[in-house]
Amino acid sequence: MKQQQTFDIVLIGSGKVATHLGRALVQAGLPVAQVYSPTKAHARRLARELNAQAVTDPKQVFDFAELYIIAVKDDAVADVVKKLPDVNGLVVHTSGSVPLAAISSRFANAGVFYPLQTFSAKRKPDFKTIPVCLEATNKPALAQLKQVAKKLSSTVRVIDSAQRAQLHLAAVFANNFTNHFYALAQELLQQQKLDFSLLHPLIRETAEKATVLSPAAAQTGPALRNDKKAMQAHLALLKKNPKLAALYKTVSSGIQEHRKKHGT
Amino acid sequence: MKQQQTFDIVLIGSGKVATHLGRALVQAGLPVAQVYSPTKAHARRLARELNAQAVTDPKQVFDFAELYIIAVKDDAVADVVKKLPDVNGLVVHTSGSVPLAAISSRFANAGVFYPLQTFSAKRKPDFKTIPVCLEATNKPALAQLKQVAKKLSSTVRVIDSAQRAQLHLAAVFANNFTNHFYALAQELLQQQKLDFSLLHPLIRETAEKATVLSPAAAQTGPALRNDKKAMQAHLALLKKNPKLAALYKTVSSGIQEHRKKHGT
Repeated sequence: MKQQQTFDIVLIGSGKVATHLGRALVQAGLPVAQVYSPTKAHARRLARELNAQAVTDPKQVFDFAELYIIAVKDDAVADVVKKLPDVNGLVVHTSGSVPLAAISSRFANAGVFYPLQTFSAKRKPDFKTIPVCLEATNKPALAQLKQVAKKLSSTVRVIDSAQRAQLHLAAVFANNFTNHFYALAQELLQQQKLDFSLLHPLIRETAEKATVLSPAAAQTGPALRNDKKAMQAHLALLKKNPKLAALYKTVSSGIQEHRKKHGT
Repeated sequence: MKQQQTFDIVLIGSGKVATHLGRALVQAGLPVAQVYSPTKAHARRLARELNAQAVTDPKQVFDFAELYIIAVKDDAVADVVKKLPDVNGLVVHTSGSVPLAAISSRFANAGVFYPLQTFSAKRKPDFKTIPVCLEATNKPALAQLKQVAKKLSSTVRVIDSAQRAQLHLAAVFANNFTNHFYALAQELLQQQKLDFSLLHPLIRETAEKATVLSPAAAQTGPALRNDKKAMQAHLALLKKNPKLAALYKTVSSGIQEHRKKHGT
């Protein structure tokens, strides 16, 4: 049955990216024929949901599919590439930080299909809004990836591995690092028995504002105004936490330097 | 005419907070009788919009109003307090970082009415969602402030000056500092001719996720996983920018320490 489909996709992985991507593919009318994961329960769970075949042995992976999507942790991509059977179809990974070469070193038809978003087990992403960044070793492969990506997302970009590496670094700043500052803010509130929810509207508006204006135009605060009195007061509150005080100084200087450099 | 109103409010200031707060008061059925600003054009613009009287000389400020709201820059509060006529009504400021004493040092009926949000000239805030943090020198004053605040917002909290100072510091982390990281991300993208809009969905989701889960639970990334290879790759991209590389290391260590401390 599966073998007769015109466009066969094999999904490799069963984590958050594989799960959300698999769902989005099926919803977009792109059936997933097979799900491979070394963990049987995981492979079965996702395969059942996607109405696909579950396999746990790389030797069982179909060798005639048109598209193989490796949606595993960054540092597991190389291992999967090694284990796959010889295939003629297009093999892609979904990772921001792994170069195309990780796949093209073995497969002639190689590509990258990088959905730029943070995925959570319990939150349903709106794939239409997620930028998908593509790269491929040849034009037909790129055309094929574009076709798939455009069925999922309204933002599809072709970028090279150097651009993707920088994009991934920028995403670390915009996601991991900002989230750490939320965590630090929560800690500060807990010290005064204040609930983190007090900051929810501010956090939402800060994010929204940066996308509507630009972050440079949206910048405010004591550091930008060089309000030494306010900064001293903040540092006084942090005197028992020298690391946080040092971070406060570093980021405040960064804001001031950014302003000088960009004149905003 | 104005003198016969049962609840007179004098609004002092004409900037972003004064403007948005003035509009919200009027919309909530709490008329503003007078707007004071030393800059004539500003006082007139806002007074006209709020259907209030504009005054530019502190001596002209009504001395019989029930509520005086000082919505000026943090470092201008003291000066305004000095210049106001002797009044019996309740005098409050709207600042996160200014203690109650800045007003209670002169006025017996003193308070703080701190709306915790970042205001922009061009964005209409939804006041209902904005937490309003209150403090007052006496119970009737606090009751009066609560009455006003509840007409504007669905989140009203009574907090003391020490709590408010810490809340303001936390807001700097959650707003000013995260916005700076957005700006750094934008800069990184520009270096590779990539558009900042690629990060908009990630930024929105990061903020949303931190409010739905908690920031500690939402934390991801190379630092959390201690993925040394990914971190080395990022630092290699930053080798021409030692300050940014140092910041990357500092925040990454912070994420790792936070994890150890809180076990997430």
